[in-house]
Amino acid sequence: MMFALAYTSMSGAADNTDPFVASTSVAVVSTDSGKLQGFVQNGIYTYRGVPYAKAERFMMPEKVEAWDGIRPALTYGEICPIPPMSGVARDELFNPHRYLPQSEDCQFLNVWTPGIRDNKKRPVMVWLHGGGFTNGSSIEQVAYDGENLSRKGDVVVVSLNHRLNVLGYLDLSAYGDKYKYAGNVGMVDIVAALEWIKTNITEFGGDPDNVTVFGQSGGGAKVRILMGTPAAKGLIHKGIVQSGAGFNSTVEQSVSRRVAELTLQNLGLTSEQVDEIQKVPYLQLLEAGNKAREQLRAEDRTVRAGWAPIRDGDYIPAHPDGPEFTPQAKNIPVMIGSVLNEFTSIHRTPPAELQADNKNNWSKETARAKLMEQYGDKADAIAEAFLKAYPDKKYADANFIDTWGRPGVINNAQLKADQKGAPVYAYVFTYESPVMDGVGMAWHCAEIPYIFNNVNLVSTATGGGKVAQTLADKMSSAWIHFARHGNPNHPGLPEWPAFTSEGGATMIFDTTCEVRYHHDKELMELLRR
Amino acid sequence: MMFALAYTSMSGAADNTDPFVASTSVAVVSTDSGKLQGFVQNGIYTYRGVPYAKAERFMMPEKVEAWDGIRPALTYGEICPIPPMSGVARDELFNPHRYLPQSEDCQFLNVWTPGIRDNKKRPVMVWLHGGGFTNGSSIEQVAYDGENLSRKGDVVVVSLNHRLNVLGYLDLSAYGDKYKYAGNVGMVDIVAALEWIKTNITEFGGDPDNVTVFGQSGGGAKVRILMGTPAAKGLIHKGIVQSGAGFNSTVEQSVSRRVAELTLQNLGLTSEQVDEIQKVPYLQLLEAGNKAREQLRAEDRTVRAGWAPIRDGDYIPAHPDGPEFTPQAKNIPVMIGSVLNEFTSIHRTPPAELQADNKNNWSKETARAKLMEQYGDKADAIAEAFLKAYPDKKYADANFIDTWGRPGVINNAQLKADQKGAPVYAYVFTYESPVMDGVGMAWHCAEIPYIFNNVNLVSTATGGGKVAQTLADKMSSAWIHFARHGNPNHPGLPEWPAFTSEGGATMIFDTTCEVRYHHDKELMELLRR
Repeated sequence: MMFALAYTSMSGAADNTDPFVASTSVAVVSTDSGKLQGFVQNGIYTYRGVPYAKAERFMMPEKVEAWDGIRPALTYGEICPIPPMSGVARDELFNPHRYLPQSEDCQFLNVWTPGIRDNKKRPVMVWLHGGGFTNGSSIEQVAYDGENLSRKGDVVVVSLNHRLNVLGYLDLSAYGDKYKYAGNVGMVDIVAALEWIKTNITEFGGDPDNVTVFGQSGGGAKVRILMGTPAAKGLIHKGIVQSGAGFNSTVEQSVSRRVAELTLQNLGLTSEQVDEIQKVPYLQLLEAGNKAREQLRAEDRTVRAGWAPIRDGDYIPAHPDGPEFTPQAKNIPVMIGSVLNEFTSIHRTPPAELQADNKNNWSKETARAKLMEQYGDKADAIAEAFLKAYPDKKYADANFIDTWGRPGVINNAQLKADQKGAPVYAYVFTYESPVMDGVGMAWHCAEIPYIFNNVNLVSTATGGGKVAQTLADKMSSAWIHFARHGNPNHPGLPEWPAFTSEGGATMIFDTTCEVRYHHDKELMELLRR
Repeated sequence: MMFALAYTSMSGAADNTDPFVASTSVAVVSTDSGKLQGFVQNGIYTYRGVPYAKAERFMMPEKVEAWDGIRPALTYGEICPIPPMSGVARDELFNPHRYLPQSEDCQFLNVWTPGIRDNKKRPVMVWLHGGGFTNGSSIEQVAYDGENLSRKGDVVVVSLNHRLNVLGYLDLSAYGDKYKYAGNVGMVDIVAALEWIKTNITEFGGDPDNVTVFGQSGGGAKVRILMGTPAAKGLIHKGIVQSGAGFNSTVEQSVSRRVAELTLQNLGLTSEQVDEIQKVPYLQLLEAGNKAREQLRAEDRTVRAGWAPIRDGDYIPAHPDGPEFTPQAKNIPVMIGSVLNEFTSIHRTPPAELQADNKNNWSKETARAKLMEQYGDKADAIAEAFLKAYPDKKYADANFIDTWGRPGVINNAQLKADQKGAPVYAYVFTYESPVMDGVGMAWHCAEIPYIFNNVNLVSTATGGGKVAQTLADKMSSAWIHFARHGNPNHPGLPEWPAFTSEGGATMIFDTTCEVRYHHDKELMELLRR
């Protein structure tokens, strides 16, 4: 019906079957700040670059000023400034990117929905991007595009930019009340976006009372932190942590205040001159902050001083990696998992040499020699335990075992299960992309296109086609079912029980999907020793 | 047959109908520097980020060092550094972009072809990007993607990055022989790419003896300059100048040497210290060069001191905008045109205000008042002449007449026709995109998606769908026929005669395409007065 209104004022004839429609009579929505013009593409209403807040540097986000008329929301907004990139290289090869202009005015979100103002209460899936707390954006990866997921699941997909690195996490709280939350404004931005969603998402056909936050890597860490953030209470109802459990993801306030102190020193500013920091050019500010972190680490190599949210006992009261799963999240269903290889495969090799030493061509002798090099006399036991855990994998693959992400998944899943509240579901993604003859394996980020049902959008990474699409159907359906019901089970998958300390049920996502139980217990114990 | 080899070493079953294929057994080509792994997408072999040369700053490009094994060519290469962008804004709205990481090692090209090593001699279409000589890249706009054009025309499409702005056109020739061509290395890079094509394109199923260079805006200016560049002789066989005839596109050497002199001064370098300029960080170098240009303009506002190729009487011997069409191009067929509105519509209005004052809603009184403001007592005559020239347009549209591009097209077409050599074909693109209810009109760059048959790739700008696709079919076919035969005529268009001074035949590309003869002569004369 909406389609029929398209192009009515134009000489070119309107056509209800056209895949794309945008005009002032179509796809216009009202928000609490004003009207937005989006577009309809293949049946999905799309709004890009929607301002959800505005903020001065280091200050709390405020409501967007209302505007008159109809504001175009056809293009992505500027992203938060990030450290300069050294080149395209491997990350682009495996994770096709959208690089965008940067601005400190970066509080924009994007919405994809099958309908507007139709009184349907669709689940809302809010994507939190990765890149630690330093890099990335709402659409950094091409695979983050929400159109296909929205259509497949009849869900509203939202993704958002927020403040990062020195702009998001420089803890100036020692220098005056107005800087009280400066060390957490990156997280506060996310909460502001969730508040915008609560207020406005009904207009976009979404249910403000069924919001799932999902994220990968740093985005997964953001999900975990939000589950223990009082300001986010009531704004999120389900959480999915993808390859984000390995992050020790927050910083002690004693450390973050020392970083700020050294940063001011590096800029030649006294504490009385703190307000001058508002005017320092971004790259100079970043450099001063990064130098401060290095100075701190030179004093003590064990200190964690990354750009990340601050455990200030107020905005973020508890350690997300503490001895218990945050009580606030007791009734929030959680899905948590990792990929088989995370940082062990391609992340070691310069791109031009990726095919020079392909593990698929190794003899067993070569593979074993490399295992011995890595694990010494435990090599044979580890290879055996690996093949027991993953019987469809090759002997050579034992050289690429992830110990970064998987232990955190097990630990988090156990803590959550032991809480005896809402269920937790665990998974490992083990599918090896055929592109580049499998040298990438299941790299950190590899599962993202399958979740978003976007394998053909990034076929240079996934290989596209039927094999990838079959897996994408299974995985995206699981995410959708979880967002809708708090349970990922659907007819395309074998029965997937919730994780318990005793059972340890874990879905293995691969060309064959199957549930296994504490499948890598022996392997993880061997590696821990 | 190539498809059948896909994925043979993988557990996921190969499928001949998969839209995307890449493995070491498929899409591998040999170049004179080594092997490249590309991919096949929807039947088109694609190679991205192929290195065609390498160069130190300000130095001539050299042959790429040969490599062993197979180099992946799956991702775009780094682009030449460009001035920092202030934001996404309007340009992204109407010309969806691909922003890419930047590096001074930027000599990369991309190839799209329907077949490799098949002894077919396909026309080669080499796209030269716009952005003056300061901005842009081989894939700056999403619409530059060559896949659809390659498939439609059975042609090989190539696009390339080259050096720009201060890196491509700082004329240090006064400071030693090694800097002899420093002021033209941006053009020399393009010629190096054309030489790479001559050497290697047979492997990609292309005909090295039928190369068409086509480009828009600055890219069109590049085409015109190449037609008079001795080093490009024999490397190009046809030329298409899209909205590039309005550029006064080269710089006098007396001016360019003065810019270089002031640049060194601004950097605090003496002429003996000239080699130090190799180590100056890019942004500092750009700033010093831009300041030099401003200093020169402060002395004399009429001087043309943009970043652009230098008329050094050697690499570029003649003024491309001289009193005759360059004799070297006598036997090169040319197509030349502009768009109806170029810089007169959206380029005046901030994006948030685009819909605030939409000409489609003006009363005749409002439209006439605005015309009076612009043209005084000539307003009525101009409106009348405009509607005579473009009878399908509206009265209000007379407020948006382009006088930047169209006079240059007429002048160039006449000079070329008077040369009595190969033919010249003229066009005006007048189609008004329905997106944003037509506020964009036929803006500078608007025709590009139609040429590349990519209207649905950038539907936020074109509106996509059948109306846009019909026009894209007509236009891309004309470009393909011109590349193949030196003549754009094809059955989907009315008969399109070559332009002559007497006849003045001009194809109007719009929902109805028609040839008109000196159709805007009266209008242009009125505006010239």
